[in-house]
Amino acid sequence: MTPEEKLASLGYDLTEAKASHPAMNVGTIVGNLMWLSGSITPPKDGVPWKGRVGETYTVEEGYEAARLCAVAQLAAAKTMLGDLSRIKRVIKVLGLVNCAPDFTNTSGVIHGYSELLVEVLGEKGKHARSAIGVQALPQGVPVEVETIFEIE
Amino acid sequence: MTPEEKLASLGYDLTEAKASHPAMNVGTIVGNLMWLSGSITPPKDGVPWKGRVGETYTVEEGYEAARLCAVAQLAAAKTMLGDLSRIKRVIKVLGLVNCAPDFTNTSGVIHGYSELLVEVLGEKGKHARSAIGVQALPQGVPVEVETIFEIE
Amino acid sequence: MTPEEKLASLGYDLTEAKASHPAMNVGTIVGNLMWLSGSITPPKDGVPWKGRVGETYTVEEGYEAARLCAVAQLAAAKTMLGDLSRIKRVIKVLGLVNCAPDFTNTSGVIHGYSELLVEVLGEKGKHARSAIGVQALPQGVPVEVETIFEIE
Repeated sequence: MTPEEKLASLGYDLTEAKASHPAMNVGTIVGNLMWLSGSITPPKDGVPWKGRVGETYTVEEGYEAARLCAVAQLAAAKTMLGDLSRIKRVIKVLGLVNCAPDFTNTSGVIHGYSELLVEVLGEKGKHARSAIGVQALPQGVPVEVETIFEIE
Repeated sequence: MTPEEKLASLGYDLTEAKASHPAMNVGTIVGNLMWLSGSITPPKDGVPWKGRVGETYTVEEGYEAARLCAVAQLAAAKTMLGDLSRIKRVIKVLGLVNCAPDFTNTSGVIHGYSELLVEVLGEKGKHARSAIGVQALPQGVPVEVETIFEIE
Repeated sequence: MTPEEKLASLGYDLTEAKASHPAMNVGTIVGNLMWLSGSITPPKDGVPWKGRVGETYTVEEGYEAARLCAVAQLAAAKTMLGDLSRIKRVIKVLGLVNCAPDFTNTSGVIHGYSELLVEVLGEKGKHARSAIGVQALPQGVPVEVETIFEIE
């Protein structure tokens, strides 16, 4: 199965990514490296996410938000590359969790992102990562993730 | 106009950047890639910034702080490169907003950075970006930005 | 002295690094660039760190935590490279401090990381850096650091 077919089998559609401001790009490619703009949690069944993990959302809900961020990053990658088979490897991920002050399980949330990448890309999906808790994310979403890829 | 002339026409001076600690560099160049140290909001008319966006500062003030961070990053780039015309492209920006817990408009603040880069560098100034809200920044400034450039 | 001998002379052991999740890697190497997963503060004398700088921990304790993160990043680098002499240069560091809301000395904490790198690697250890304060880190540790290296 191609990564696109794998995503479809998991029930995820890839919609074309757009830069969220005219001064921004969806991503930047230099040689075999691609840096993507961060993807904030996309709406679920048309409903926007708004709130913090450990307050509004449980770890399990945060995990699901992180999976949706992974789908959004892959949609951005497809917009940049045309074909997800051009991904040679996921290099590095910065996972950002909008969380309550006493929250300590940022890793448990961002595992949702990491596991989806490996489900879709196999060994190529494994990556270096940090998972941190922040004070605020755009539009109050619970999770944002940004990724660097090696491409062919 | 060169980028330096454009900055002067906007009323901005570029002062030489210095590393803020002996173990640090203003930036690091490897081949055609340049990573800069983050620039914290520089003083305005000699007055340091101190406080959070959404508390001490409005979004509009945060936007202005982000523009000043962009000028500081370009000053750092000039210190590294000698000449801003050597910038081939802005690759990736991480925008950090020191903000109130309930703040959700980190994007609106970091647009100040992004728009200045495009005003000065044109199409080359467009970039991949994340804009996140953090708990604290050095010296209590409201905005810090770090940039990766492609250079010639 | 090799970097390994220097670390030993400072009283630090390098233990083999392991990815903290099956979907993650300790680091990723592409050509002459290496991105490491972030290292959270490792236990001191078997006791885990848990708490914020400016609340549970002083700046001096945070500084020590940052030194231990540097040792952990060098252990990760050794796991990836086999030999720390293959480090050509430290490119870029993102230092993350889990801190109290009114904390402003994130730089003072991350200096612990930066100074250890220069003690061990000399001029090669100097780097571009940002030092930011975040809301939460995995397991509630006070400091996490992630590093990009140029390697031979």
